[in-house]
Amino acid sequence: MMIMSKIKQDLFELIFEADTKKGKAFDIVLLIAIVFSIILVMLSSVREIEIKHHTFLITSEWILTIFFTIEYTLRLLVSPKPIKYAKSFYGIIDLLSVIPTYLALFITGGHAFMVLRSLRLLRMFRVFKLSRYVHGASVISKALKLSLPKISVFLFGVIMIVIIVGSFMYIIEGEENGFTSIPRSIYWAIVTLTTVGYGDISPQTDFGQFISSLVMIIGYSIIAVPTGIITSEVHSANKKDKYSTQVCSNCMCEEHDTDAVFCKQCGEKIN
Amino acid sequence: MMIMSKIKQDLFELIFEADTKKGKAFDIVLLIAIVFSIILVMLSSVREIEIKHHTFLITSEWILTIFFTIEYTLRLLVSPKPIKYAKSFYGIIDLLSVIPTYLALFITGGHAFMVLRSLRLLRMFRVFKLSRYVHGASVISKALKLSLPKISVFLFGVIMIVIIVGSFMYIIEGEENGFTSIPRSIYWAIVTLTTVGYGDISPQTDFGQFISSLVMIIGYSIIAVPTGIITSEVHSANKKDKYSTQVCSNCMCEEHDTDAVFCKQCGEKIN
Amino acid sequence: MMIMSKIKQDLFELIFEADTKKGKAFDIVLLIAIVFSIILVMLSSVREIEIKHHTFLITSEWILTIFFTIEYTLRLLVSPKPIKYAKSFYGIIDLLSVIPTYLALFITGGHAFMVLRSLRLLRMFRVFKLSRYVHGASVISKALKLSLPKISVFLFGVIMIVIIVGSFMYIIEGEENGFTSIPRSIYWAIVTLTTVGYGDISPQTDFGQFISSLVMIIGYSIIAVPTGIITSEVHSANKKDKYSTQVCSNCMCEEHDTDAVFCKQCGEKIN
Amino acid sequence: MMIMSKIKQDLFELIFEADTKKGKAFDIVLLIAIVFSIILVMLSSVREIEIKHHTFLITSEWILTIFFTIEYTLRLLVSPKPIKYAKSFYGIIDLLSVIPTYLALFITGGHAFMVLRSLRLLRMFRVFKLSRYVHGASVISKALKLSLPKISVFLFGVIMIVIIVGSFMYIIEGEENGFTSIPRSIYWAIVTLTTVGYGDISPQTDFGQFISSLVMIIGYSIIAVPTGIITSEVHSANKKDKYSTQVCSNCMCEEHDTDAVFCKQCGEKIN
Repeated sequence: MMIMSKIKQDLFELIFEADTKKGKAFDIVLLIAIVFSIILVMLSSVREIEIKHHTFLITSEWILTIFFTIEYTLRLLVSPKPIKYAKSFYGIIDLLSVIPTYLALFITGGHAFMVLRSLRLLRMFRVFKLSRYVHGASVISKALKLSLPKISVFLFGVIMIVIIVGSFMYIIEGEENGFTSIPRSIYWAIVTLTTVGYGDISPQTDFGQFISSLVMIIGYSIIAVPTGIITSEVHSANKKDKYSTQVCSNCMCEEHDTDAVFCKQCGEKIN
Repeated sequence: MMIMSKIKQDLFELIFEADTKKGKAFDIVLLIAIVFSIILVMLSSVREIEIKHHTFLITSEWILTIFFTIEYTLRLLVSPKPIKYAKSFYGIIDLLSVIPTYLALFITGGHAFMVLRSLRLLRMFRVFKLSRYVHGASVISKALKLSLPKISVFLFGVIMIVIIVGSFMYIIEGEENGFTSIPRSIYWAIVTLTTVGYGDISPQTDFGQFISSLVMIIGYSIIAVPTGIITSEVHSANKKDKYSTQVCSNCMCEEHDTDAVFCKQCGEKIN
Repeated sequence: MMIMSKIKQDLFELIFEADTKKGKAFDIVLLIAIVFSIILVMLSSVREIEIKHHTFLITSEWILTIFFTIEYTLRLLVSPKPIKYAKSFYGIIDLLSVIPTYLALFITGGHAFMVLRSLRLLRMFRVFKLSRYVHGASVISKALKLSLPKISVFLFGVIMIVIIVGSFMYIIEGEENGFTSIPRSIYWAIVTLTTVGYGDISPQTDFGQFISSLVMIIGYSIIAVPTGIITSEVHSANKKDKYSTQVCSNCMCEEHDTDAVFCKQCGEKIN
Repeated sequence: MMIMSKIKQDLFELIFEADTKKGKAFDIVLLIAIVFSIILVMLSSVREIEIKHHTFLITSEWILTIFFTIEYTLRLLVSPKPIKYAKSFYGIIDLLSVIPTYLALFITGGHAFMVLRSLRLLRMFRVFKLSRYVHGASVISKALKLSLPKISVFLFGVIMIVIIVGSFMYIIEGEENGFTSIPRSIYWAIVTLTTVGYGDISPQTDFGQFISSLVMIIGYSIIAVPTGIITSEVHSANKKDKYSTQVCSNCMCEEHDTDAVFCKQCGEKIN
């Protein structure tokens, strides 16, 4: 029992920790395996390569899948709270990276889902202690979080515009010009408003071209709205970084401006 | 009379108010009916679906239209000031959501206007008391309002550019390369300046490609102008939210945080 | 002589001033004539309309041209400094709006240059005293002016990128894939970097698609640079608007911050 | 020896310095030669021009190459530290501008690499002492440098999105709709997310069009992220330019304007 526990402890450190030398080495091997596995999936989708190197590709795929399966099983076994791990973000991602190859036994093309393995690369930030990047990511995600209500309102407005414009264009242009249904016309409106502009569907009538000109100019102008929202939040987040780190010795209040001389909460002088 | 008045009062609360339990339930049923109705309109524009489920679609459409007609009539009847309601934003939207199906009896494709019903979804914000979103919407609309004069000047400049560039391209490229008229060339100039780029019309001559390269670079650079304008306003609007309007009575220092109790400059208590 | 001088004076007020009732009326007539003239040019480029309404279009065009010719001649005659006027911005624009129709007698399509008349619409701002818009325009132009050195450096960088990328793509893709020459490949690079993406030329080889993916991501990211530059200047310009309007009574120093209590130049207390 | 040393000194000043009259003249001749050489490369890639002016083009190209070769050799000879120069940024660029023509003797199309000469134009800024532009460039590069960690995180996120979306679209649309392999589908995802939208590959199925609508809206919204990041840094960099770093010794107030002589908060003189 004692020995089992020791092995479990060692395996836990090897698999879950990135601080010890062995743990880091394991993580690096894992990252390389993931990158290699993603490249394999991509290459095996290219017909010429697939035909030429069929055996190599299929063998590597199975070896990697078995390796990931063992790794996932070990994670479950050595984790002190296996269910909590299985339900965590990384737990689900780890499972998703194992299933697709087995799935491919039943469903054609199922192994393409293996690209979900790329999500495991997020681990990279933790492994290499890229704190500057982690900090950058936290600034971005905080800014996005704070912008969410405003961005949602904006997207709601965009959806209203594309539904209405799409339907009008369906009436104006009609099926003979490629606007075969309202959903397809809405697809066209999104392609236009976001300034993507494939050109697979494009207005042919004069009035249709006039309406789409308006949509383009609207799309060109309102892109400023999400930009304004996020820029403002990023700027505030960046600024907050520059707040003084002083804490009031009297009331423990934080986030004083850099030019603050007295605590804004209790009036105590800050040194 | 008394009973009538009571019924009218009850109906008013049911239809117009969203605070009572019944009123909210009615609003939710209404919202679901609207969403359902929009989906119906979209689906019935897809030929295969329309042919297959013709009876179901046409029946549902009529049931919903009759429901909306009754609802609109009731709104007029129970409203203390029916004319004021009829002229209000929501009054017009409510009417617009009723007319199209009847219109379709006379005009082909008229029922496509039913997507205007989607505007009724704006009610959603009031019904669910999405105050954070309402606040976001008010920040956006305030920023847009304040930016309006500058955005108008910008759009005026854009219109001048596309008119002049469009006409030049009409001369340079001519009808044989798709620039069949000045309005169409202006349409092309808008497609290019806004970086949509369908490719349905594209310059073929060397000089034409040179001019359009300039237009693209201009379009790519000046998008910064509306962005700058709106970003600046959004940022000011956001900032105003975050600062208290209090001024220290001792040192006149402004821009205190909303949670400030003492002046950060002189330590005086702020009331 | 006296009478001549009086007439000249009256005409000057009529044509050049926008403050008197008559002067304003004249300017409005002029603006309408310009808008009407631009619409005429556009319509006459549409073949069907041109054939159908040939006589009407050509007559109107000549009437308007003669009207503009007389107006321009009068401007020269009544102006106290005719040469200075002729060399001014509006003087050149006024001349440019007269020449094209006469030019069309010699050069086919010459009358298309008449759209240059649209530049005369800039007068609008002065006529209608759209001071809020004029203010907006001045903020934009000031921000653009201040951004010019940085925007120039940015555009210089963009030109270097498109020249180098264009040439590489000419080597990689070659003539058989539409990259027929370096100038055309540079045109493609601009179309791609600015995210316009016509699709008239698009990479076919795997390596070419890889390179263009990089160009797209670069273009998608660096659009942030001009935006950042202009946004920063617009924001500063907007902020300056919000400076206190107080002038120090002691040293006449302006542009104090709104929270300034003492003059930053001479230490005098500001009331 | 003495004379050799004098000649070497003179040549050093002529070639490396831009302060003396002769040195500046040499640099201007060099810049003109570079621009001329780049135009030649471009023109000689246009088939019609190449056939017509073959002798002129090839002669000019060789004259310029020999001129650049001599110049590069001289630089190596007169430089006090030839190896340090050869390894420097400009040393490598200078070498790269010499090699391609010789390379073209062995490799077809090799002379197209001559466009790398355009990098030598960067020297321009130093020659003409465009300090305002140099300053602008330094603000941009400082802002880009400070944004790098955040931009990297953003690009990492973008790469993850295009890999996953690309693979899903490969499954959904399949080879018959142009999504022939995962790498190509990722190429499509990049074309769409960056709003370039060539239209060479575009979704045909309903579900594919729905997914790409989402990708477009994501791309349209998240462009705000790099913009926000860079704008914030540019704004900070601009601001730092405008504020003095002085702190009032009396009240510790910061952020005085550069022209401030007295503290705006307490009236104390700033040294």
